[in-house]
Amino acid sequence: MDFKDLINQQWTLNTRPDPDVIISNFTYNESPVRAPKKGEVLLKIHYLNLAPVMRMYMMADGGGYSTERILDIGDVIHGRGVAEVMASEHEHYNIGDFVQGQVGWQTYKLSRMTKQEKFRKMTPRKLPIYYGLSALGMTGYSAYCGFVSRGQPKKGDSVLVSGAAGGVGSLVIQIAKAMGCSRVIGIAGGQEKCAIVKRLGADAVIDYKTEKVEKRIEDLLPEGLDVYFDNVGGEILEASLMHLKKGARIVLCGAISEYARKEPFSLKNYGLVRQKGADLRGFFVYNHPHMYEEAETKIAHWIREGQLEALMDIEEGFKNVPQSLIGLYTGTNIGKRIVKVSEGPEINY
Amino acid sequence: MDFKDLINQQWTLNTRPDPDVIISNFTYNESPVRAPKKGEVLLKIHYLNLAPVMRMYMMADGGGYSTERILDIGDVIHGRGVAEVMASEHEHYNIGDFVQGQVGWQTYKLSRMTKQEKFRKMTPRKLPIYYGLSALGMTGYSAYCGFVSRGQPKKGDSVLVSGAAGGVGSLVIQIAKAMGCSRVIGIAGGQEKCAIVKRLGADAVIDYKTEKVEKRIEDLLPEGLDVYFDNVGGEILEASLMHLKKGARIVLCGAISEYARKEPFSLKNYGLVRQKGADLRGFFVYNHPHMYEEAETKIAHWIREGQLEALMDIEEGFKNVPQSLIGLYTGTNIGKRIVKVSEGPEINY
Repeated sequence: MDFKDLINQQWTLNTRPDPDVIISNFTYNESPVRAPKKGEVLLKIHYLNLAPVMRMYMMADGGGYSTERILDIGDVIHGRGVAEVMASEHEHYNIGDFVQGQVGWQTYKLSRMTKQEKFRKMTPRKLPIYYGLSALGMTGYSAYCGFVSRGQPKKGDSVLVSGAAGGVGSLVIQIAKAMGCSRVIGIAGGQEKCAIVKRLGADAVIDYKTEKVEKRIEDLLPEGLDVYFDNVGGEILEASLMHLKKGARIVLCGAISEYARKEPFSLKNYGLVRQKGADLRGFFVYNHPHMYEEAETKIAHWIREGQLEALMDIEEGFKNVPQSLIGLYTGTNIGKRIVKVSEGPEINY
Repeated sequence: MDFKDLINQQWTLNTRPDPDVIISNFTYNESPVRAPKKGEVLLKIHYLNLAPVMRMYMMADGGGYSTERILDIGDVIHGRGVAEVMASEHEHYNIGDFVQGQVGWQTYKLSRMTKQEKFRKMTPRKLPIYYGLSALGMTGYSAYCGFVSRGQPKKGDSVLVSGAAGGVGSLVIQIAKAMGCSRVIGIAGGQEKCAIVKRLGADAVIDYKTEKVEKRIEDLLPEGLDVYFDNVGGEILEASLMHLKKGARIVLCGAISEYARKEPFSLKNYGLVRQKGADLRGFFVYNHPHMYEEAETKIAHWIREGQLEALMDIEEGFKNVPQSLIGLYTGTNIGKRIVKVSEGPEINY
């Protein structure tokens, strides 16, 4: 293979968000690609994953989030992607393998496939490879591992899910129904998103933009909730605590409503957790790698059976990646946002 | 038995705390005692238990705590006690049995021994009966069930306990050591209390009245904590969240620092629970009755082996009960406060 003609495109950190992400935070670069040396793999990146938390990686203090190395000015922006092995001098990877992992915002990557990059070889599932960034990747693992291992749902449970039109939330709604939870309520913003959550099987949907969330939870779940899967934090978390059943589990998965605040959100009614013998359970997907295979197998099965639909919002073009991230903070996406950064047709694997 | 000469003394609710408990909140009454009718037991109360949470029972809204029926003006103040069966027309109770349960602030009680009163027949342990209000009663059950089932300690764990000179906290310190936790740190207020916690086996003690709690936690547990057993809430809870290991468990058992605030305490850094994949676990002892027998047997064993000392602060005299409660809010007690309300020598059972 001739590498001389390959150009690696990159987005790097120019300035830090203050606090909003803006287009001038990023710099576009091009550089030549070289052949892999011993122990290295050359990856061609096909799809990049975008998520609200990425803003944190760009901040001087990592936004208080210690889950990724803090970026220096000039560093390639962190991001997971699906990539194809184009050339390999690494004993565990062969040309034609597909992997998902920490590739960064670029079109090629030379990698030693270190533990820190959290690469995972994709299992052929005869589905489009971009599923590796949604239902068959970290998004799916987050939904399944978070809901199953931290939410500990039982048949007949009442389940509340915020961010229910988002990548993780939309899967949790469907997994909850597939597992026999009897009342599954979604919270989303706006008619379009609410209609989608309903279509995915939620028994009811709360529109936080037009409805009083706490009152609606009370009306819909008069006996309280068993599991609240929290993707948003803030006032909606507080509202959920008002309606806990004894021994309820709240899975703290994300807090998108809090990321852009200058002052951290302060939880006034956490004492209800004590009073109800309930649990506020932090969930960090990378603590649960032993469950990824189970998650992926179950989810692939549900997709094939037509029981589960992965909501994806696929944009095109490497040049548009910064704008696609910025759009996430104003809620323009329906489901997991993914950007196709390579040319050519869709690949099934 | 002649009941005509028996006089029941009672403390009833005169006015509600606003917000502090004061002596004029209580009214003293006397009334005659009658013989039990079919299904009733006549109990003679020997010891009453006092706890900070009792203030809540006296408030118009139960202080937001739903664990006991809200008192009406004129009602006998709620409280657990150790009592002796003096006469019985109830098939499950015989003269000479000792029970612990909801007796109220009085010297005699006629009871149908309903579920709501949560009576428990005491198992003979050849120890003074007042142990039934500390290590061999709800205090011991709280320490053991809370720490074991919600804290899930493992050998070698680093454990932090607040309210460490209190009834529950002092037992948790000793149970943690008995179970092989390697670093057990207590938090208490003042030299005298700290010295006691050290004597009970804590590896180190933090004096919250004179030391910077968060800095001291950092110094004493540089790698963070596995279990924090919280009896106080508020700023000390917040400090503990700064030093969680991945997957740490915080047992929310009590919140004495919060009970007397007019505004609820607001937890600013709860997001760390999410980031550390940690758990904030509410603990309510009445949710764990299946563990009481195990708790009592283990604790009685540790007491006999000299591995565990029940800190008790035993006052005398039914007339002093209100003042003994008020003293709890200013921290005058060392260990579980109990009031001996009967005449005569100590009884072993």
